[in-house]
Amino acid sequence: MKKLINSADTILEESLDGFAAAHADILLLGAERKFVRRRTLKPGKVALISGGGSGHEPLHAGFVGLGMLDAACPGQVFTSPTPDQMIEAAEAVDTGAGVLFIVKNYEGDVMNFTMAAEMAGREVASVVTNDDVAVEKSTYTTGRRGVAGTLIVEKMVGAAAETGLPLAALTALGEEVNRRTRSMGVALLPCTVPAAGRPNFALADNEMEMGVGIHGEPGRRRVPLASADAIAAELLDAILKDLAPGKGSEVLLLVNGFGATPLIELYLMVNAAKRILDSAGVAVVRFLTGSYVTSLDMAGVSITVSVLDSKSTKLWDAPVQTAALRWGV
Amino acid sequence: MKKLINSADTILEESLDGFAAAHADILLLGAERKFVRRRTLKPGKVALISGGGSGHEPLHAGFVGLGMLDAACPGQVFTSPTPDQMIEAAEAVDTGAGVLFIVKNYEGDVMNFTMAAEMAGREVASVVTNDDVAVEKSTYTTGRRGVAGTLIVEKMVGAAAETGLPLAALTALGEEVNRRTRSMGVALLPCTVPAAGRPNFALADNEMEMGVGIHGEPGRRRVPLASADAIAAELLDAILKDLAPGKGSEVLLLVNGFGATPLIELYLMVNAAKRILDSAGVAVVRFLTGSYVTSLDMAGVSITVSVLDSKSTKLWDAPVQTAALRWGV
Repeated sequence: MKKLINSADTILEESLDGFAAAHADILLLGAERKFVRRRTLKPGKVALISGGGSGHEPLHAGFVGLGMLDAACPGQVFTSPTPDQMIEAAEAVDTGAGVLFIVKNYEGDVMNFTMAAEMAGREVASVVTNDDVAVEKSTYTTGRRGVAGTLIVEKMVGAAAETGLPLAALTALGEEVNRRTRSMGVALLPCTVPAAGRPNFALADNEMEMGVGIHGEPGRRRVPLASADAIAAELLDAILKDLAPGKGSEVLLLVNGFGATPLIELYLMVNAAKRILDSAGVAVVRFLTGSYVTSLDMAGVSITVSVLDSKSTKLWDAPVQTAALRWGV
Repeated sequence: MKKLINSADTILEESLDGFAAAHADILLLGAERKFVRRRTLKPGKVALISGGGSGHEPLHAGFVGLGMLDAACPGQVFTSPTPDQMIEAAEAVDTGAGVLFIVKNYEGDVMNFTMAAEMAGREVASVVTNDDVAVEKSTYTTGRRGVAGTLIVEKMVGAAAETGLPLAALTALGEEVNRRTRSMGVALLPCTVPAAGRPNFALADNEMEMGVGIHGEPGRRRVPLASADAIAAELLDAILKDLAPGKGSEVLLLVNGFGATPLIELYLMVNAAKRILDSAGVAVVRFLTGSYVTSLDMAGVSITVSVLDSKSTKLWDAPVQTAALRWGV
């Protein structure tokens, strides 16, 4: 295992301290590093809180700030955060308009956020994301996994929350964006959880895992390495079959690296994906390209397609000021 | 070799096409993909042009846009662009106030940019960056290499150019920022040039290359893998010895990933670096963390320290709207 660390036990705290120092203009670390919160709250705005296991950076703490999340609760690497983290985060950022939890669909996350919602002693609603079309059940999941599409939910609901939309409407919006959003990924190289010290799955030199999860969970099938065009075609075939966007639909295309994939390859995948979507009569009108929902040092890519309308396009374009996404401010 | 590509021969063109599609709001691809240029030029502003071998994305095309570069010329992977690329880029973006070339110090780049300056038939000045303190001569270099500090020169000179500063003053500013900026890096894993198909150097499981170049060139020494704290200490010791910032200096800290290093590790390095700088009486007042000057799929990190004053801090904070850096707009 080759990592820039001091000890497997202190990675999360040391990384959070560096993160908080680097972005002190927009966020603060909560007591005992239980959550990362927006520095300046907007009274009367519904508070948006997400979280999950670490190792997916910049998700979620990188999306804390104006126009997106009010707080994020980081668990240990690939481990759900605990209910007390969400409860204390809610206490810190709820200004009276209620709290919306945005939760990726993994059993541990859903259980702990549900428990926190019940125990928080305040008005809490939840949106559970499940955009991954690869498999219906997975290692840590009943139903579909929540993956990179989660950031689109966080961005759009975050923008709507800034306009003063109430909790029930934000919940409905989050569910709607989730329904319009589908993802699938492929791994070329596995990731190594620091505490384990060795890759969490094995791939031969000519193999890839099609439909991989963001913790390296198995996908649909293990297949020989293929060209970028063939990979894009298989991922988009699965996505479009499930999403069934009408001809002439306008979409946001997110090409997401898993942590060890260089940008030159991600933009090549953008090109491949756009050509396929063009042929399918689907117009890509917004793009996001980069490593936003990662799996430690896994190499590979996921493609996410989110169907837009004029409302959601405006929400996507609205100002955002976070560590990982920043525009309009 | 595991890469998301169709063929080693078409990586650059396919990636540039994806890049141009994804960022069509701010940039355009020149004829025959010889350069990437800012979509909207500002008449009367000095035109800033950079470029170099590809494989370092987002450098340089990712820094084309308001407040930074007017054009970038991408060579093939790890190969200098040719003089006709810079000449045609200058033709496209010079609005009459002259052209400044920002060139990383590699023999091929310097030779081709120099030839282009002579043949361009317009007023051209150049700034050559050489911020890497690792070695005085290297595989492709006489004198020091230009590495991640180059983006700081591009950002600050770009901001000054927007205010209407003339060519001579921008050249002097670029040289001054370069003199105030020092970098050094370390590789944990090598990179693979697609056309070669195999790693461009070998490292044992417990080895790292201290002082590595951004093409995988040898550094100062090959040593056993060390802790993040020890790595940060060695990099900063070399940087601070050379830069000799006064006690109480304010600096920008850039922690840069080489392409395959996850963000959780980069922020951990931020934390390690900041503690060392704090102890040295150097105040980190600006941070940039991410994979900005990469080496394909190399794993590792570079640290850059740039001494700030009130003028350069303002230039750093000024609005920028590029694919890779965006704030204030």
